Amino acid sequence: MSGPKHECGVFGIWAPGADVARITFFALYALQHRGQESAGIATTDGERIVKHRGLGLVTQAFTEDDLRPLEGGWAIGHNRYSTRGATTLRNAQPFILQTLHGPLGLAHNGNVTNARTLRQLLLERGVGLSTNSDSELLLKALAVPVRDERAGEVGESVWLPRLQRLLRVAEGAYSLAVMNRDGIFGLRDPHGFRPLCIGELPYGDGQIGYVLASESCAFAPIGARYVRDVEPGEIVRLGPRGIESWRSPTVPRPAMCVFEYVYFARPDSDLEGRSVHLLRQRFGERLAQESPVAADIVVGVPDSALPAGIGFARGAGLEYIEGLIKNRYIGRTFIQPDARLRRDKVRLKYTPLRANLAGKRVVLVDDSIVRGSTAGPLVQLLRDGGAAEVHVRISSPPVRHPCFMGVDLGTHDEIIAHQKSVEEIRQHIGADSLAYLSLPGMLDVVRESDAARGYCSACFDGDYPISLEDGTTKLQFEDIHGA
Amino acid sequence: MSGPKHECGVFGIWAPGADVARITFFALYALQHRGQESAGIATTDGERIVKHRGLGLVTQAFTEDDLRPLEGGWAIGHNRYSTRGATTLRNAQPFILQTLHGPLGLAHNGNVTNARTLRQLLLERGVGLSTNSDSELLLKALAVPVRDERAGEVGESVWLPRLQRLLRVAEGAYSLAVMNRDGIFGLRDPHGFRPLCIGELPYGDGQIGYVLASESCAFAPIGARYVRDVEPGEIVRLGPRGIESWRSPTVPRPAMCVFEYVYFARPDSDLEGRSVHLLRQRFGERLAQESPVAADIVVGVPDSALPAGIGFARGAGLEYIEGLIKNRYIGRTFIQPDARLRRDKVRLKYTPLRANLAGKRVVLVDDSIVRGSTAGPLVQLLRDGGAAEVHVRISSPPVRHPCFMGVDLGTHDEIIAHQKSVEEIRQHIGADSLAYLSLPGMLDVVRESDAARGYCSACFDGDYPISLEDGTTKLQFEDIHGA
Amino acid sequence: MSGPKHECGVFGIWAPGADVARITFFALYALQHRGQESAGIATTDGERIVKHRGLGLVTQAFTEDDLRPLEGGWAIGHNRYSTRGATTLRNAQPFILQTLHGPLGLAHNGNVTNARTLRQLLLERGVGLSTNSDSELLLKALAVPVRDERAGEVGESVWLPRLQRLLRVAEGAYSLAVMNRDGIFGLRDPHGFRPLCIGELPYGDGQIGYVLASESCAFAPIGARYVRDVEPGEIVRLGPRGIESWRSPTVPRPAMCVFEYVYFARPDSDLEGRSVHLLRQRFGERLAQESPVAADIVVGVPDSALPAGIGFARGAGLEYIEGLIKNRYIGRTFIQPDARLRRDKVRLKYTPLRANLAGKRVVLVDDSIVRGSTAGPLVQLLRDGGAAEVHVRISSPPVRHPCFMGVDLGTHDEIIAHQKSVEEIRQHIGADSLAYLSLPGMLDVVRESDAARGYCSACFDGDYPISLEDGTTKLQFEDIHGA
Amino acid sequence: MSGPKHECGVFGIWAPGADVARITFFALYALQHRGQESAGIATTDGERIVKHRGLGLVTQAFTEDDLRPLEGGWAIGHNRYSTRGATTLRNAQPFILQTLHGPLGLAHNGNVTNARTLRQLLLERGVGLSTNSDSELLLKALAVPVRDERAGEVGESVWLPRLQRLLRVAEGAYSLAVMNRDGIFGLRDPHGFRPLCIGELPYGDGQIGYVLASESCAFAPIGARYVRDVEPGEIVRLGPRGIESWRSPTVPRPAMCVFEYVYFARPDSDLEGRSVHLLRQRFGERLAQESPVAADIVVGVPDSALPAGIGFARGAGLEYIEGLIKNRYIGRTFIQPDARLRRDKVRLKYTPLRANLAGKRVVLVDDSIVRGSTAGPLVQLLRDGGAAEVHVRISSPPVRHPCFMGVDLGTHDEIIAHQKSVEEIRQHIGADSLAYLSLPGMLDVVRESDAARGYCSACFDGDYPISLEDGTTKLQFEDIHGA
Repeated sequence: MSGPKHECGVFGIWAPGADVARITFFALYALQHRGQESAGIATTDGERIVKHRGLGLVTQAFTEDDLRPLEGGWAIGHNRYSTRGATTLRNAQPFILQTLHGPLGLAHNGNVTNARTLRQLLLERGVGLSTNSDSELLLKALAVPVRDERAGEVGESVWLPRLQRLLRVAEGAYSLAVMNRDGIFGLRDPHGFRPLCIGELPYGDGQIGYVLASESCAFAPIGARYVRDVEPGEIVRLGPRGIESWRSPTVPRPAMCVFEYVYFARPDSDLEGRSVHLLRQRFGERLAQESPVAADIVVGVPDSALPAGIGFARGAGLEYIEGLIKNRYIGRTFIQPDARLRRDKVRLKYTPLRANLAGKRVVLVDDSIVRGSTAGPLVQLLRDGGAAEVHVRISSPPVRHPCFMGVDLGTHDEIIAHQKSVEEIRQHIGADSLAYLSLPGMLDVVRESDAARGYCSACFDGDYPISLEDGTTKLQFEDIHGA
Repeated sequence: MSGPKHECGVFGIWAPGADVARITFFALYALQHRGQESAGIATTDGERIVKHRGLGLVTQAFTEDDLRPLEGGWAIGHNRYSTRGATTLRNAQPFILQTLHGPLGLAHNGNVTNARTLRQLLLERGVGLSTNSDSELLLKALAVPVRDERAGEVGESVWLPRLQRLLRVAEGAYSLAVMNRDGIFGLRDPHGFRPLCIGELPYGDGQIGYVLASESCAFAPIGARYVRDVEPGEIVRLGPRGIESWRSPTVPRPAMCVFEYVYFARPDSDLEGRSVHLLRQRFGERLAQESPVAADIVVGVPDSALPAGIGFARGAGLEYIEGLIKNRYIGRTFIQPDARLRRDKVRLKYTPLRANLAGKRVVLVDDSIVRGSTAGPLVQLLRDGGAAEVHVRISSPPVRHPCFMGVDLGTHDEIIAHQKSVEEIRQHIGADSLAYLSLPGMLDVVRESDAARGYCSACFDGDYPISLEDGTTKLQFEDIHGA
Repeated sequence: MSGPKHECGVFGIWAPGADVARITFFALYALQHRGQESAGIATTDGERIVKHRGLGLVTQAFTEDDLRPLEGGWAIGHNRYSTRGATTLRNAQPFILQTLHGPLGLAHNGNVTNARTLRQLLLERGVGLSTNSDSELLLKALAVPVRDERAGEVGESVWLPRLQRLLRVAEGAYSLAVMNRDGIFGLRDPHGFRPLCIGELPYGDGQIGYVLASESCAFAPIGARYVRDVEPGEIVRLGPRGIESWRSPTVPRPAMCVFEYVYFARPDSDLEGRSVHLLRQRFGERLAQESPVAADIVVGVPDSALPAGIGFARGAGLEYIEGLIKNRYIGRTFIQPDARLRRDKVRLKYTPLRANLAGKRVVLVDDSIVRGSTAGPLVQLLRDGGAAEVHVRISSPPVRHPCFMGVDLGTHDEIIAHQKSVEEIRQHIGADSLAYLSLPGMLDVVRESDAARGYCSACFDGDYPISLEDGTTKLQFEDIHGA
Repeated sequence: MSGPKHECGVFGIWAPGADVARITFFALYALQHRGQESAGIATTDGERIVKHRGLGLVTQAFTEDDLRPLEGGWAIGHNRYSTRGATTLRNAQPFILQTLHGPLGLAHNGNVTNARTLRQLLLERGVGLSTNSDSELLLKALAVPVRDERAGEVGESVWLPRLQRLLRVAEGAYSLAVMNRDGIFGLRDPHGFRPLCIGELPYGDGQIGYVLASESCAFAPIGARYVRDVEPGEIVRLGPRGIESWRSPTVPRPAMCVFEYVYFARPDSDLEGRSVHLLRQRFGERLAQESPVAADIVVGVPDSALPAGIGFARGAGLEYIEGLIKNRYIGRTFIQPDARLRRDKVRLKYTPLRANLAGKRVVLVDDSIVRGSTAGPLVQLLRDGGAAEVHVRISSPPVRHPCFMGVDLGTHDEIIAHQKSVEEIRQHIGADSLAYLSLPGMLDVVRESDAARGYCSACFDGDYPISLEDGTTKLQFEDIHGA
């Protein structure tokens, strides 16, 4: 898969006395691959809450002038890739509110599948909504008191029962960073569809702060250390008492998105304890064992398929070499190519290296094929560059089903493997041969160190871990008001 | 060398009837690595000239609204990296003028070494100047008539004698794209310090247009074919009569910048007929022969040193592997890291891959060391990632001298190899061993296919092909006015 | 009073099929004097609601591109002058929300005196707030259902009981334009502190639309006809059934702000049936009778005191003449004069006309003195212009008390007549004589056609029509939730 | 005349040690009526020159951030109303250049009638041009040396002979503020078409600076005192030696634009020693004598015709009263009224005061009728407001001819009095009677204190003081190069 489509990145930090907005900026910079539509940061000192949001990359969305007013001791940040709602600042996160118990901020990665039901409940209660985003729903649901709420009870946050209620009523995928006067709360939905992990940040004069991020690749750049992942259905609080945790008594089968390993996550992240880069290399090795081919060289599609390419080369005993150069300055452009250039859109991004390709039998390794619009032109590009044969190897199984948990794979109609067989796809892309990694093969690699672990592989096998029908669950007014 | 410092990129196109501004946009997109400070496009139909310039990447500088008014049948474009003058739109190119013979536009890559002298001549003549840029000097010198100029003479452009005069009076480095009513002129200074090449662009209904670019990597994305390089001291015209050429009767030793091969040029460009990527691989192979080392794996610094890394691995018979992940969204940010992060600035950009590095003896291949501020932190990063040993190999000789031909290498004081021996540098960066490619070794590789070819390697050996003293040449008023 | 300080302007229009956003733009243009900080327009078709807001004058806040998406058949608009909250777009109106009963928008002129109490009630209910503006409070209170609400009941809007509740629970000054799927609602607080009037708009092919505006001066420019004022405590609906009205069974003494006649309103407005211009002329005439003076000419301070000046001249049988020229291009500037110019700030705005003033005994008529910073420099300016004597006449009584109903007169400390006697003020401003219109004199003029009419003249006599203590009223949860 | 059309305003200041940019800002603010398209300021210390320009009003074009870099001891400024060239920043003044003798800046009011000839001369010399503005022509002509120029000759500026040459070669209207290392030069063309005057500015600790402005109304706001007008054909220098002057030995009949008195100039300006306001009052008085009418009240069209209205009332022994209210916030808007509103465009700007008009026979006084599009709607507006009769009196003669000296009166086809007789115009505008001030009557008033004074009244009588044919004058290369 070669498109720039990712879902959101969230971040939170508790480090009173540090420049938390600036640290959040650099963390979002490291999480940029998870969303390029907009970026935002909100900070608080427990009383006042301030935020800034901007369109585009985090480097485009923030200037020093924007950072200056972002004062406080804790903060949350967000990179947005739109899965719902139009591309405007209006839907940009974090969302913030003033509540009875002080400021409240929220950043969200995922997709709430019963949003329509939750929306109706809030509207009936008389809570107006400004956007059509899930994040506003979750935020405003948190602002509603639970029954018999005792604010400021000794030793406990008023926000905990509200977050516990959220776990009960919200369905689908949501990894949240929530900010209020009691600190930074992290929360993963009961299936743990999207990742979220915790780090420790030494700062100042021997102080220890805490951070929360979608991926661990955000930690090293800001000088933080990975501690652990948030568990599915777990609520953590990062605050003056360090890391505190509440777990749901009953959680369903964990179902983290396996596509994070295939394509989304940055290779230098560890997800649930496993190195993404290493898994990708092993996907490549395994693929070489499953579907070998007589060839001279192995070329990975930069950048996401390079580890799989190297792994394939190692597994096949073939030479790994660069065969495609990617324009490093690919960014969001609003300029449309003219008709002539549009036919060859992939050429704006990649160039074949004739010197390495001429006369060679090439294995082209990519991480996935979703809509099938890129693979064909890439095969042609290699042939134009002199390749004698082009054998395509995909380091994941055929994507056959849409995702309803926050990843934009398109609809059934747009997904090529839902429409065509592997042989038909091979013809479509003009490859000499085409093979995918098998689903058992992929899961073997993923489960190497934890055989019992559950994953969501619905985009490959259609086995969705949750019901997708919004409204079947009969939420009562009491559910959201507490009981 | 890992910094984003490059010099300018120029482009020109003659294709009446095509959307030349849009094609120029995508060519500049492909030449983005040569300058990220500002981008500009000027178009003409021979009578009217229009331009738009903006700060930042070409994708930031242009919207569809900006492209719309850029009508005409030929165009020039420019990506600027400042070597002179401050970072404002004021110095952004192209520069344009109305002249006696219609519109005139100019885009420039290089550094004119007798700018002070040329400036004084123009001011004395009563030609005022608006900026302190070389490009305005060259443009306004072109607007001055030569003696006994006969405009519109049959079969010849009035601009040719003016461009020939420019070759006589301007010293230093300049590769130019000049636009006027007679077409697009390309010009390389007599030493040919900076590259410039010609392509052919099929368009419309069987028509052929012509393009001019700093590097051939601009051709494939726009559907053009490489034809040849402009020769040092050559003037070409792209226009209704195809490609026309005038060569200086006497040209000095060619002296194209060898650093283009080392670092500047995109790997998928061919410069003077040689694949940049291939040369870099061979630099790596040659380095492995010159300075072998007992090690387990080879890691290249992404992205510029990847080919050298792969070449070194091949030459040394070692395994090539990814060991450093680079943040793909590195862009111009105006946010300063806080003091704590500044110490580890390289961590904002690179992460070590523990899974591949742990316990290994690593060869780290980079393309160059200029100021020496990045190599040390990279070595430390690999050690943090678990590397048992780190051996640094640089695929070019030590940079010891500043460049006065348009490349920002800093001053003598800033260049580490001017200040320290190789062993001192090794200690400075904390490597277990350090070796550079030898200058003869590098030139052997570069000259493989053309042993007699001349290059400028002044940054390595201090042997500048031209006098650097502005004012020693006694330009006469007549020189610039023609005789 | 010569400052540009006004309070807000509101507008509403029901005219399906007309370009309601554009008409709202020109109405806000006519109401510009009531607020220059920001301007906004929201439109709806009953389902979708869209808005645009911008800083500065309405001509600065809107471009054609901004108007284009503002589709729908009814709209509200707002010019803001900040009485609470900082100068940012965040507080700019209208505010909008999605509710159970569709879109809801609100534009507000006034100041809610029990805002703190309302705020607490909403927060306790779990409704979060985004700003500290009264308008958001009123909007979100409207979103809360009343008990036993029957949506869509035949012949009645679900919004009526909510608006009736608002009249019960909100104290202070509020003239509102509310937009929802049932049309445009207008509402004036029970005392009717701020004005609001209704007009009829012929459009299209014989259709009749309806408009609502703070002042009737908004009607002529858009081709509308004045119908009547909204009564204190009245709720009107402009919609498919024309103008409908609900009145509170019990309303207190009406108390429209008399300062609207003195200074705020545009002279070409009719307020509660009286021509503002005419009243101002009569203030001047009455003042001439109350406090005559031997003089040669009468000069009014442009522009607000011109009618009073002309009236004074007529009443005194003196010649009216222009004596001060005002810079017509006075606009919001962010440039501070240097120390030297700051001393004479009034000179940036006014120039004396020596030709008319030299050697003359001048009566300078202004409408009010609040802080006393302008009158002194104006007297000096006339003397510089050659005036032999300067007699100041103020066409309203001394302002002695702050306003808590939405007008920014400053605090007790800032109000000069709270601190000084009339004679002390005369000395302070350096006039040869000083006289104010008496309060009975002013009220006589205002009540000419309706002797029993009540007004708020608290800024003159300190007799505030309502309690100013927020929290004394014990609002119950039921009050806001309905009962 | 009621349109916002004016020509340019220029300003210059010599006051080393003062904040000259800020003072220039406030002077441009006072000259805003002369141009609202763009504003600019350039400052210098004799070596460095800096400028900032922006679109719109000077308050829109400048922020504190824009002023900050404008350092130096002298400055020029400009408000532009376009008479040539499109509305973009590109043509915004001042224009600046670096020359052999240091920085050069120029601000221009007027219209050069032999621009085509000058342009050709410069292009032939090899001086390229960037715009099609007169100002760039004049600036670049100044940069060309005169023959045998002796720079830095004792006691004389190198710029004087160049300015003298400019007076010889440039035809038409030009009042210039020129800035260079020798100070601020002021220059009026030999006929003195456009005004220019000199002031004295006390500042700092007893220092005296000097200022130059299109109108004297710029002086009072900045604390300067009017000294005298620059004479036609005179060059003045404001600098360390105070005010120095060079006069042309032979000057033609002075021909200052009489329309400045009628409409352009601010009423609080003195032009050539006469108060503009007073002249306008007298135009009104004289008109009352020439064309009396039986009526009840006199109404002037705000704001430009108020003095003529008051003068008419005085001359006719009638009551002067406000009858039309003008929206004070009229500014440049880019929003187009819809078709319905466009028919009544004048209603967006003016409202009739029924209270003053009802049943009255009204004299409506305006300063001029050019295209005739406003007078008719104004007459209708008064009738709508209840006027029984409307008699229109115009305080200047019929405008019958275009202006080629910098005022945008439109072409012959657009000028109503070129097409129609007075009676036809009366019918066209629907007035009960219509009369204009006679040309002899107007000139009598203007010449009251100086019977011999010459004026340009070409727009009234078609008697243009200069040839309008560009190219008839045979300028030689030597003329521009000096001899």
